[in-house]
Amino acid sequence: MSTIRQRISRLRAVMQENGVDMYLIETDDFHCSEYTGAYFKCREYISGFTGSAGTVVVTADAAGLWTDGRYFIAAAQQLEDTGIRLYKMGQPGVPTVQQYIVNTIREGQCLGFDGRTVNARAGRALVRALEAKGAHVNAKLDLVGEIWEDRPPLSHEPAWILDKAYAGRSREDKIDLIRRILKERGRDMLVVTALDDIGWLLNIRGNDIAYTPVVLAYMLIGQEMLRLYINPDVLSEEVRTALESAGVELAPYDGIYADMGRIPAGTQVICDGTQVSYAIVCSAAGGVRICDETDPIQKPKAIKNRTEIANIRNAHLKDGIAQTKFMCWLKQNAGKVPMTEISVSEKLEELRRQQPDYIEASFAPISAYGPHAAIVHYEASPETDIPVEAHGLLLMDTGAHYLDGTTDVTRTYVMGALTDRERFYFTQVLRGSLHLASAKFRYGCTGYSLDYTAREPLWQLGVDYNHGTGHGVGYLLNVHEGPNVIRWRQLPGRNEGAIMEPGMVTSDEPGVYFENEFGIRHESLLLCRKAEKNRCGQFMEFETLTLVPYDLDGVDPSLLTEEERHFLNDYHRKVFESLAPFMTADELEWLAHATRRI
Amino acid sequence: MSTIRQRISRLRAVMQENGVDMYLIETDDFHCSEYTGAYFKCREYISGFTGSAGTVVVTADAAGLWTDGRYFIAAAQQLEDTGIRLYKMGQPGVPTVQQYIVNTIREGQCLGFDGRTVNARAGRALVRALEAKGAHVNAKLDLVGEIWEDRPPLSHEPAWILDKAYAGRSREDKIDLIRRILKERGRDMLVVTALDDIGWLLNIRGNDIAYTPVVLAYMLIGQEMLRLYINPDVLSEEVRTALESAGVELAPYDGIYADMGRIPAGTQVICDGTQVSYAIVCSAAGGVRICDETDPIQKPKAIKNRTEIANIRNAHLKDGIAQTKFMCWLKQNAGKVPMTEISVSEKLEELRRQQPDYIEASFAPISAYGPHAAIVHYEASPETDIPVEAHGLLLMDTGAHYLDGTTDVTRTYVMGALTDRERFYFTQVLRGSLHLASAKFRYGCTGYSLDYTAREPLWQLGVDYNHGTGHGVGYLLNVHEGPNVIRWRQLPGRNEGAIMEPGMVTSDEPGVYFENEFGIRHESLLLCRKAEKNRCGQFMEFETLTLVPYDLDGVDPSLLTEEERHFLNDYHRKVFESLAPFMTADELEWLAHATRRI
Repeated sequence: MSTIRQRISRLRAVMQENGVDMYLIETDDFHCSEYTGAYFKCREYISGFTGSAGTVVVTADAAGLWTDGRYFIAAAQQLEDTGIRLYKMGQPGVPTVQQYIVNTIREGQCLGFDGRTVNARAGRALVRALEAKGAHVNAKLDLVGEIWEDRPPLSHEPAWILDKAYAGRSREDKIDLIRRILKERGRDMLVVTALDDIGWLLNIRGNDIAYTPVVLAYMLIGQEMLRLYINPDVLSEEVRTALESAGVELAPYDGIYADMGRIPAGTQVICDGTQVSYAIVCSAAGGVRICDETDPIQKPKAIKNRTEIANIRNAHLKDGIAQTKFMCWLKQNAGKVPMTEISVSEKLEELRRQQPDYIEASFAPISAYGPHAAIVHYEASPETDIPVEAHGLLLMDTGAHYLDGTTDVTRTYVMGALTDRERFYFTQVLRGSLHLASAKFRYGCTGYSLDYTAREPLWQLGVDYNHGTGHGVGYLLNVHEGPNVIRWRQLPGRNEGAIMEPGMVTSDEPGVYFENEFGIRHESLLLCRKAEKNRCGQFMEFETLTLVPYDLDGVDPSLLTEEERHFLNDYHRKVFESLAPFMTADELEWLAHATRRI
Repeated sequence: MSTIRQRISRLRAVMQENGVDMYLIETDDFHCSEYTGAYFKCREYISGFTGSAGTVVVTADAAGLWTDGRYFIAAAQQLEDTGIRLYKMGQPGVPTVQQYIVNTIREGQCLGFDGRTVNARAGRALVRALEAKGAHVNAKLDLVGEIWEDRPPLSHEPAWILDKAYAGRSREDKIDLIRRILKERGRDMLVVTALDDIGWLLNIRGNDIAYTPVVLAYMLIGQEMLRLYINPDVLSEEVRTALESAGVELAPYDGIYADMGRIPAGTQVICDGTQVSYAIVCSAAGGVRICDETDPIQKPKAIKNRTEIANIRNAHLKDGIAQTKFMCWLKQNAGKVPMTEISVSEKLEELRRQQPDYIEASFAPISAYGPHAAIVHYEASPETDIPVEAHGLLLMDTGAHYLDGTTDVTRTYVMGALTDRERFYFTQVLRGSLHLASAKFRYGCTGYSLDYTAREPLWQLGVDYNHGTGHGVGYLLNVHEGPNVIRWRQLPGRNEGAIMEPGMVTSDEPGVYFENEFGIRHESLLLCRKAEKNRCGQFMEFETLTLVPYDLDGVDPSLLTEEERHFLNDYHRKVFESLAPFMTADELEWLAHATRRI
């Protein structure tokens, strides 16, 4: 019997012991994080499926895994011979997880799950749906934890202070601000469980999650109280002193549940139901008024302050130096030295590491050659790694955290001869990207108003990309950060669609993907800033933060309008002028050509 | 003492008799119509202000009129010496009507208004706000009616049948559809008070409101009941028979209030709070559940059926013939025959009248020469009328109802020499208009996603127009119809922002307005239709319905991209080919030049 079959069989035994007829396993940690630590990988442990998104449901005689289009092929392979059925989300006739649960469970039966891994809105929706069926819920069960013998411990990497020279604003100031917002909203308390919120508010960082320099913790904030729930072992004397002198009380990581139970009746507590777990909301004492409203930290965190903006520009300069040196190496050595998807990715990482204050990659790097680039979330592994040859396109979507900010950039490199079709789409995607970067708009616009301009060249051709055009980017925090997005339709259950405020950083990343052929994406980060204010109102514009040439070998200038050509040439002049002082003589000669006027 | 001062003094007397301390007079009729009949012009009667939007509040010692930026100048003139203070809506420091009422009224005082002229949402909001102040409301008072001695009677023009050849769908079918929607939504009844809803549902038209061929009526619809509240005098034997044979019961116009009071407790009644009056909602019996949700007639009415679409194309052909003959006459006679804003408007109307099945203008025509065109809602009157000379720009925004549909078109005509600035902006506005007309987009987009493409050429210059880019257009009904709009921000309290569905007709009308200089607007109507469906999804596009040349004398071709030039040339070729058979030899020669390739 395979390992997975054995695990499921043991899970069924503990389900029976606990009176559970159906058990739900989500991918989330206790903080709705995008990436999770090893301790939280219950879904992967029970199913063997390694993708970043998926849900498992196990009953006495069936087991299913739900995942989205990015993972249909990988999941099918990994589930082979496990007895777990693959449910392809969004395909016609495939029930959602909730539909499956509600349709399958019978009156009087019990659904178990770990309420810490499900957000409050989803938990409430499930409970309501099951009540209607006469079934009930036990949300206090970590049953995979019970059978997982060699489970890694909760991460407890040291926390460290992000100096005000990097954060730009003291933790005392930020705490004051949040307390003012609570007052304005007429609420008494705020539950903070998003790890980047805590990192931003307290100017601390850590290393408990891959690609995200945050510390596992929770917080409760009121006008008088300010309590941080955290493993005390991760706090050095320096960090502890800094926090305590800002009025932060320390409590054990798990202590938040008991404290929620001690909140006096009538207290109005903000719990953003898209972020705070069902378990935390359930642990509140009776009579506490849970206010499911937008997390008040999200917007001030997204609007970068002057210091952060100056730092972010510097981070992009360093990142531009590393990437451009890489690009020069790549283009000069194509077909001359052996390269694979993984080796070029490592080469780029090595160059970034040489930059001052480099911390880590800001997400799992995508290095995808040829047809692999058509797989939007392709991650090269030793099994899939292929040589990068001297023709076609190499798509690299990578990013880094520096002390002075976070980058996220995609360039598609021309490795040699291109087909007309490749060059045509390379240029059309670039046009969309330039349109957005050069947008000017009235204050008050959201990203929903701006998405069309990036997609327009592709939509005119009847082509589209099945992802958003842009996401907010945190400051040495989550590389995907709300509430700013650039999309053409709203997604349910997200705090998105904010007005584009000066100081917000948003990605600009249109693409095209032709299965088994090639994929192209161009991504730069844009800083929103004020343009002129006149009788018509306040106008807004973007500054392109990313400083890496677009590979002109892929551009057909005859497809560009005058305006597009000017904008591209101006951008390349800025790239050249910014990077020139940091290039070797050989690199400089190459860069002058790579950023030539067209 | 002026007439207005006398009227207000008499109003104050009846306010006192009725125990009313403050009296509110809105512009609406009982149906939230955009235009209203003479009977309903209480606000104009009491204030002398003739604008299409405004609110009057009268207390024992003060009187105020609120209106928006379109009317600041006209209102100031008309209110002179009336004792009524002008409140300029949206200006800094100016309270809203509701803020003024709440701030001014004192505990125990009474606000009176006619609840039939206030929509349910606004009425409820007022009552709540006054409760908090310890004041109360009497919403059953038509006090202006009490003092208005020579008030015109309620209009009672004959109703007439719109044949199925024009409507495309029988009233029986439509009634079935609405009953199905009620079932799907789990509601028992629907209150219909929007006059265009009733016209659409029953395939009847009338003449009770200027520019809108509708009949004053209300309806109640349930699975078993179908009652039309209407003045019986307006129904010919033919109309009555047609309605009765579709199961329509007839009742007196005012009878709806009593019938609302007879609805059994527990009945779930849809009353769209943006359309149904506060008086109607208040007249419901206790225990009736009022469901304030979107009017279910709005969307099927907006999605034109095949017959309607074929008819609408024909209406636009006729309208194009009339307008193009007019344009030819205008351009050939500029500076040769005397013209004024009003005389050219009458000339155009005369040419439209010659087209078969012409009914009436679809809104008050705008004919604005020179600086007048910078006043967005300028309506020439004998006092303001000026000669149209052989230089500069003439903006004409006009439309017509035909049996086969409704048109709304704006062309800005070059009367002779232009400044570079005029030509520059003429071309930039045209670019925006062409962008939108040539848009291609994924099914699911709303007009919020498409607005940017029309504004982009102007926003890039730091210029904007302070109105929406597009509105839905009814079929021989309201020229402004929801739920389709093209805007960049949502307006509160409207049922707008629908997905662009195939069959919807929406205007495309960017503009620029430079005070005391000139104004430019180009408007065509667009039919939304399906483009290709492929692996990326269903794409949508627009067909330009309007068939009138854009005045090429205003276009600087060097400012157009290749794509814009092609689109404009293709459009002009279509205009030429469509209209050529209907032109005289002289007109044809002119048209060939007016639609030349550039």
